[in-house]
Amino acid sequence: MIWEEIDTHAKEWVKEAGDRIRLSFEKTLNIESKSNANDLVTNIDKEIEQFFINKIRGVYPEHRIMGEEGFGDELNSLEGIVWLIDPIDGTMNFIHQQRNFAISIGVYENGIGQIGLIYDVAHDELYHAIRGKGAFINGKPIPLLKESTVKESIIALNATWVMENHRIDHHLLIPLVRDARGSRSYGTAALEMVYVATGRVDAYLSMRLSPWDFGAGAVIVEELGGVVTNLKGEKLNFLTQDSLLTANPGLHQEVLKNYLKIDQ
Amino acid sequence: MIWEEIDTHAKEWVKEAGDRIRLSFEKTLNIESKSNANDLVTNIDKEIEQFFINKIRGVYPEHRIMGEEGFGDELNSLEGIVWLIDPIDGTMNFIHQQRNFAISIGVYENGIGQIGLIYDVAHDELYHAIRGKGAFINGKPIPLLKESTVKESIIALNATWVMENHRIDHHLLIPLVRDARGSRSYGTAALEMVYVATGRVDAYLSMRLSPWDFGAGAVIVEELGGVVTNLKGEKLNFLTQDSLLTANPGLHQEVLKNYLKIDQ
Repeated sequence: MIWEEIDTHAKEWVKEAGDRIRLSFEKTLNIESKSNANDLVTNIDKEIEQFFINKIRGVYPEHRIMGEEGFGDELNSLEGIVWLIDPIDGTMNFIHQQRNFAISIGVYENGIGQIGLIYDVAHDELYHAIRGKGAFINGKPIPLLKESTVKESIIALNATWVMENHRIDHHLLIPLVRDARGSRSYGTAALEMVYVATGRVDAYLSMRLSPWDFGAGAVIVEELGGVVTNLKGEKLNFLTQDSLLTANPGLHQEVLKNYLKIDQ
Repeated sequence: MIWEEIDTHAKEWVKEAGDRIRLSFEKTLNIESKSNANDLVTNIDKEIEQFFINKIRGVYPEHRIMGEEGFGDELNSLEGIVWLIDPIDGTMNFIHQQRNFAISIGVYENGIGQIGLIYDVAHDELYHAIRGKGAFINGKPIPLLKESTVKESIIALNATWVMENHRIDHHLLIPLVRDARGSRSYGTAALEMVYVATGRVDAYLSMRLSPWDFGAGAVIVEELGGVVTNLKGEKLNFLTQDSLLTANPGLHQEVLKNYLKIDQ
């Protein structure tokens, strides 16, 4: 089957990319900023994206690629097979911590997620799902998500979203953080999504992410029975930036209805 | 020398306690709540504290012990040698994640920190300092802290402190989070302090911690040239709950003066 074959290639490339990143810890990083001073990119981000593009183009020249660093294709549709690539999700952590970052690779067909791979390089943990075939951590099946209520949940979100900001009325999110058991912020959407997938946190939300940030995570979380939408409760379209709310179904519904005031 | 001897014992006990905690992952936890529903404690927290107390009393019957779970001594002074013990710092993470928690052991003499040990059990990383002898991660020296400014810093703090709360005027902290490069929250004071010690974050602050939460971390951070005070810029006294601000000296000063409006 095509997906198993793609999956085998993708896993092999992700592992090889992880080795390159680990080697880079010994070298000096060249750090640049993108649109604003805190949106950082390194030579390694760029090198790893190029690595994946070369590998994919070599085996699947007809596939299209959307990557964070912009070496892929300009996409106006999700027709056919599309790879969503973030070579280093959590670049700030990569620079400051050499941990808490991940490679994130989603493979979509006509807008439907088929494969999700998130590789936590520092921990050597590969999270991985093929649609309909289960989700795994280093090959071991991850159990389906359990339901939880807000008051017994840990919510992952950045402090920014409970301060006045121009993306969401922070008065909606303050009661959520107050009512939850706790809140955390790790600074990497890909790992925060696998934290939801593995029950380490119960929900994750963010106001501004790109398709390569949530493309792989969405496949993994949905495969385990979780829900992935934007903060309006709408499906993500994987072509544009969007907000993100992901959780087990009951918690997702409770957050949408009781806190974000969305009736569905 | 007495400190080397105490340190050798403490390291051995911490490693043994770590093994017990790892074994407990396979058993069922009994979870209780303490003062409020989210202040959790498990049978393992209690068992590990008892383990340390038995070990310390066996070798050093004249030392006094202050532990989170209350099996130690009632202390009204820090005279003599006092052990500050948190058997599992980050119990909520321990329960939900089986990672991001630590054993924290500080040894003080007449109120002066002499030894700090923080063991990140899930990562098998032992952070460790003896006053005047350097700080180490798994025996490898940790470099001295580098200076940083707010705008190039990652600040660890919980979202709670930028929402209205009865411990601090949140309007003081909002500009800090806005001006910083990023913010994170890991839910474990001990590990957030070693994250400061290793430069993975640049500052950590919290409004309500106990001596066993920061006793070990203070020795490690200070040994690397960092500053540890409460949010008024005062020295901690290690007998009572207090707020905490820890960072490299320049950043500590900048946060105190420009954000917390403390003149020293």
